[in-house]
This record gives sequence, structure tokens and C-alpha cells, in this order.
Amino acid sequence: MTPPARSPADLGALAQRLLDDLALATDEPGRVTRTYLSPAHARSIELVGGWMRERGLATRLDAVATLRGRREADGPAGRSVLIGSHIDTVVDAGKLDGCFGVVAGILAVEEIARRGLNLPFAVEILAFGDEEGVRFPSPLSSSSAATGTYRREWLTARDRGGVTLEEALRAFGCDPDAVEAAAIDLEGVVGYLEVHIEQGPRLEHWGLPLGVVTSIAGQTRMGMTVEGMAGHAGTVPMDLRRDAFTGLAEIALTVERIGRQGTGDLVATIGKVAVRPGAGNTVPGRVEASLDVRASADAPRLVALDRIRHEAERIAARRGLTIAFERHVDVPTCPMDERLQEAFSRAVASLGGDLRRLPSGAGHDAMAMARRFPSAMLFVRSKAGISHNPLEWTDPLDLGLAVEALVRTLLDLADAEGRA
Amino acid sequence: MTPPARSPADLGALAQRLLDDLALATDEPGRVTRTYLSPAHARSIELVGGWMRERGLATRLDAVATLRGRREADGPAGRSVLIGSHIDTVVDAGKLDGCFGVVAGILAVEEIARRGLNLPFAVEILAFGDEEGVRFPSPLSSSSAATGTYRREWLTARDRGGVTLEEALRAFGCDPDAVEAAAIDLEGVVGYLEVHIEQGPRLEHWGLPLGVVTSIAGQTRMGMTVEGMAGHAGTVPMDLRRDAFTGLAEIALTVERIGRQGTGDLVATIGKVAVRPGAGNTVPGRVEASLDVRASADAPRLVALDRIRHEAERIAARRGLTIAFERHVDVPTCPMDERLQEAFSRAVASLGGDLRRLPSGAGHDAMAMARRFPSAMLFVRSKAGISHNPLEWTDPLDLGLAVEALVRTLLDLADAEGRA
Repeated sequence: MTPPARSPADLGALAQRLLDDLALATDEPGRVTRTYLSPAHARSIELVGGWMRERGLATRLDAVATLRGRREADGPAGRSVLIGSHIDTVVDAGKLDGCFGVVAGILAVEEIARRGLNLPFAVEILAFGDEEGVRFPSPLSSSSAATGTYRREWLTARDRGGVTLEEALRAFGCDPDAVEAAAIDLEGVVGYLEVHIEQGPRLEHWGLPLGVVTSIAGQTRMGMTVEGMAGHAGTVPMDLRRDAFTGLAEIALTVERIGRQGTGDLVATIGKVAVRPGAGNTVPGRVEASLDVRASADAPRLVALDRIRHEAERIAARRGLTIAFERHVDVPTCPMDERLQEAFSRAVASLGGDLRRLPSGAGHDAMAMARRFPSAMLFVRSKAGISHNPLEWTDPLDLGLAVEALVRTLLDLADAEGRA
Repeated sequence: MTPPARSPADLGALAQRLLDDLALATDEPGRVTRTYLSPAHARSIELVGGWMRERGLATRLDAVATLRGRREADGPAGRSVLIGSHIDTVVDAGKLDGCFGVVAGILAVEEIARRGLNLPFAVEILAFGDEEGVRFPSPLSSSSAATGTYRREWLTARDRGGVTLEEALRAFGCDPDAVEAAAIDLEGVVGYLEVHIEQGPRLEHWGLPLGVVTSIAGQTRMGMTVEGMAGHAGTVPMDLRRDAFTGLAEIALTVERIGRQGTGDLVATIGKVAVRPGAGNTVPGRVEASLDVRASADAPRLVALDRIRHEAERIAARRGLTIAFERHVDVPTCPMDERLQEAFSRAVASLGGDLRRLPSGAGHDAMAMARRFPSAMLFVRSKAGISHNPLEWTDPLDLGLAVEALVRTLLDLADAEGRA
């Protein structure tokens, strides 16, 4: 006998319970920090893998520690639908970013089974371990491996403790030599679906729980290194200083000004700064900083980057400093697949209420997955647009509506594939 | 039979060898970093204590880990002359700052014995462990203990690893409960002498190896905490951000401008910065930074501090940020003892060449010692004025001249005390 279908409220409450449990897997007690290949990442794989297996999914870990849980097709073996997002977090994160997409996939598969429905395709849920790029400067490395676009030079980057990505993978029990084998075969894939909190204020502004993503903003992420001359804070006169930090300060205000003047939802951020040698009584001799520039179209982003670089070099030269840039990520604006957008849209419309589409300002695994697979995203309303912050919150009812929409999207795709 | 007196060249070469050995006691292989109560600090105490004992000094460690090496008076027990400086360093330091003052004292005492000279006072060499205040925000804490002006609240401060100063002292084998007993009896002290590299460019500019210090610049060292709102670097529009780091950047440029506009050798420095949460894709929600302001007179320093505080609060308010200041150190300009300046000056003059006096822009243990004891300093020429930097360098011949000047200063004081 089939148990009754769960209501969106029940699905939301269940999702929230799983997310609360997952948030306890953290590298920093008292707050949520789960970086790639950390002990907390290992615990989260154990936990999420358990949830998958309890619901009949076959699990395995690929060469870059992506947890894959697979439900085979009902009837003859066919193609597969990928559902994914990431289980790593930023430092001092909320509970939803990334994690909800994985939880939503697991609950949607469970719900289809509870309702006794059949699917003519396999469903594979991908819990990526490195979307944020917090520990190593290669965000989206997990989903890049799934698409066969992993770059081997990423393996030589070191974390703050001097450990290379290659060493960290091996210590985690993974085999970086097999990274090419993590690529998923294009022919067998219907498409990639990702459910994610919006992390912005638009759906809340419109009063809508769900929205379908049209494109993902292009982004460039760089490292900047400013070099001056360290010296004693009490004896080096102001006019003889080559202070790397005041140089960066001037550059930071320039980055902010260019960001404010830009078009196309341009945003520009310095989020990570290391001042060397870093003592109160020493004039800084060297500063390393991150630079993150995004826009909903490529032109405003590239123009802003060019201006930032030009003005930063001018500031450095005037101050007797040197500046070097290193480009870590450079991704053009990424349109989502039209057919999958339509499937998401029909599912959202079937739940009642308005349908709105919107671009994504944040990068997502779907950006990497779209290089190879038809990909689409469903956004869920975020309270006050707050994300990358412990105050990140979405009403559990909205989470439940998202799970229900994902169930209906899978059924919509099943109709198109020819239901088994 | 008395061995012949060493020449300044020989004394300098010997000093350089000891300094090279001491530089190998470091917390960071490949560079010199020796913070208070670290394993490298323990090794340096072993090394310097050995040098003292080989030369007949009786050694002991006081309650705050100051290494004290004592040579008793020749003849009846009398007063004592204190000679000191510090053996802790900044991060990525040179080999001379502080360490040379301790080495110079040891070699001067040895040289007096080699020459068969008698002194009517004991000589006690103090190797302070915490002058720089790198690990805990209480620079000069060691010399403050020697003067009975230690503040018990310093013991509760924590290092970056969360260890309190009290815990670190106990782990080092010291007894913080006995800190009052580390105070040296005023009555028994002739005065405190400190030999130190200039760490500035003046002696080199004048072509002189040595100079006598008139006063030590007053200094204020504070912590600043700027709080805004963390958020996702891709989704929070520029005009809705409350970015703590761009706020600090604007404050840093204001600090620099006020420093440049000041009189009385005013210098103002932000040397230590921590950006939270510190991820490339997150708008900074909080920044902690140091502020160090010094001048050769009190008025320009206090005026600058008042302006910095006022303007920083205005910048924070305009940006929707909060700012809090915490004062860690606040020391007025400190004149050196006239009689001891004269003794140093006669010794320098007896070596031939010009005599010049100069103020110290850097703080020194003599600043704390002068609260209780007549205190004076002898400066040695620094190459290019570079300090707090691995490029810190002084010609070994200048180091030898400084040791010889210290020998002659002790003999000058012995004449005044009535040589035994």
C-alpha cells in the first residue's frame, strides 16, 4: 500500500529537520563552517549518504569526493536526470546554501516512491564538495570534474596550512589520478536540475516562494598581491614609507567606486585580506587580497575588470608599490536550458500563483554543469536576501513547495521521455 | 695573567656570531620570529643563559620569564647597574632589534673581567621576553614587571589560538601569581642602560656609529573593530552593502593623511588586519585592525588620535557601520636621565669622533624602566634605517664600538660610585 503524499508543509518541516542535522557537521563549533575535504565534510558525507541509502539510493564517492546517490529507472535502463548542489559552505555560513538543493533532491525521489510513481530515467543526486572555493582557489571544482573540465593545475594549489589539494584529496581517501573518470557521460543525461535559495531579495519583493532562473551572472575571481617595504612603525617617517596596506586601501575604495558606477547588476568585492608581516608595530610590506567581480552580462564585468586593473596599477606605481594579479576563475554569463526552464515553469505554475523568472547573481554548480549538460535552476525565496551569513533563512513552507515543484518537474520530464 | 683587551673589531665580530646563533632560535624556519613564551623563546633563554653562565654570571628566570644574569660587585656588596633589552622579535624580524642590547651587556661584562677591572656595583643583565607585544596586546610587559607597574588584567588577554597570557606563563613554568616579586628594588639601583640599534636613518645620515638618546617618543596603540553586515558577494547590490572592509579602507587612508599632516615626527600605522569571515565570495561583516600612533612630543600625538577617532566615527556612521576602539598602550613621551646621558656621552666622546644626541621614534624597554629607575639609551647606526625586517643590518664594527662604549660607561659610573 502506498503511503499518502506529503503536503508541502510536511515536506518543508522534514527538509528543515535534515538541514538542522547537517548544520551540526561543522569545522568550527558554534557556527557552520564546512570546507572541502575537512573532517566536517567527511561527517556530512556520512550523514547525507545515510539519508540516500535509507531511501534506496545506491551511493558512491567519486575521485574528487562528490557523493553520488543513484535510483535506477523503473523499467528498462534508460537515461538519467541529475539533481545536485553542494554541501560545502563559506566560513560562518547559514544552513541552506547548497545543502537545500541536495536535501530537496533526496526528498523528491523519496516522495515519488511514496506516491508509487514510476520514472523512465534514473535519477542521480550529486552532493558536490567544493562549490565555494573557500579552502582552495578553485570554486566549482567538483562540478567541473563531473563535466570533464577539471584542470589538473588546481591540484597543486595550497590551503592556508600549506597542504596541496592533491594531498588533501589523498588524505580523504580519494584518487586524484582518476579525476577524468569522474566525468559523467553526456549521452546518458537528460539534464541537470538544481534547487537553491535565491540569496537575493527579488522573490521576497515580488511575494513569490519560487522563481525560475534565466541565466547565471558571469564572474571573475582573482588574487591581488601588493608589495611594498616592511619597516618599524615608530621610525620610518610617513613620507619614506611604502606601505602595502594603505596601497590596498586606496585600491579597495576604487574597486567599490567602480562597482557602484557599473551597469548590469555589477558587484565588486574584496572579501579576503592577509596583511604581512601582520604586527601592530610594523609597517605592512605585503598584502594579499581577493577580488570578485560579477554582472548579469559579460560586457559590464569585463569593462569593470579592465578599469580596476588599470587604476590599481596606477595607484601602486604612485606609491612605489608593485601589484600582481592572478586570475583564478573567469566564467562568462551562463544562460539556462530553455526546455528545462519550461519544465520547471510548468511545475511552478501547477502549484498556483504567479510565475516569474530571474537571473542569478551568485554562481552555482549549474554554471559548471551547463558547460556539458542541459541545466536549469529553481530559486526559493530568501528572507531579506541574506546569505553567506548565519542569518540566512527561508520559510520551511517555501522549502516544501520547492520539493513539490521538483517532484512535478521530474514527472513533467517523465512525460516527455515517455513514462515507463 | 689578564688576556689582552679585545679591539672593537673583535668585539663586533664576536657580537655578530652570538647574534647569528640567537637568530636560529625561531618559531618559523627560514625567518626570525620569536614571540613571547614560544618554543623559540625557551630555546633563546637556554642559549643566552648559557652565554651568561660561561662568563660567570648567576642566572635566574623571574615570574614573567625575564632572564636575569648577575655579576656581583667587586668588594663590598653595593648597588647594581641594570643593563637590558629584549629577546622577543616581531614576525619575520631582523637579528639585531633587542637582541644586540643583551649581547652587548654580556660582552661588556666579560670584557671588564678580561681586562682585570673592578666595579663597585653589581651588574645585572635583563633579557626581557615581551617588548614587542606581538603575541599579546601588552608590549613592554616584561620591563613593566621589573618596575612594579605590571597590570594584572594583561593576564586575561588571549593570543590568536585562544590561550591566555596567564595560561602561557604557567605552561612556560612561570608563576604569574608572583608577578609583584619580579619588581626590582629601587634603592639598590644605580640606573638602567640599554644599547639598541637606531632603527631609523639619522646616525647613518650624520656618518656616526653611535648616538645618545634624549627621549623616547610617546606612543598609543589601539585596537579598532569595524562591524557591518556579511553577505553574498554575488547577490547583495553595492548600494545595500555595509562592507566592514571598505569602511576600514577609508579609515586607513584618513589615518595615513593625518599622519602625513602631523608635526613632531608624527607617524600613524595600521599594521595588523583581520577581515571576517574572510572568504573571497563574501562581503566582509567585521574587521579588526591595529592602530599605532607616535610622536616625539605628546601634543601632536594626542591631537592626531583625536582627529583619527572623530573622522573614523564619521566614516563609519556614513556607511552604516559601527566602530569601537580599545586602548592597549598609551605612553607619554619619555625623557632619558640626564646624568646617565652624560656618562654615555663621555664614553662615546672618548672613542673619538662627533657626539650627537637624538630622540627615539621607537618604543623601548627603557621607556618602562624609566618609570622607576634612572634610564638611558645608546643608539647604534642602522643601515638605511631598516628594522622589523630581515634586511635589518649594522656593520659589526659599529656593534663592537657600542660594546666598547658600554664598557667605558660602566667604568665612568664606577668612578662616580667610587671604584672598589
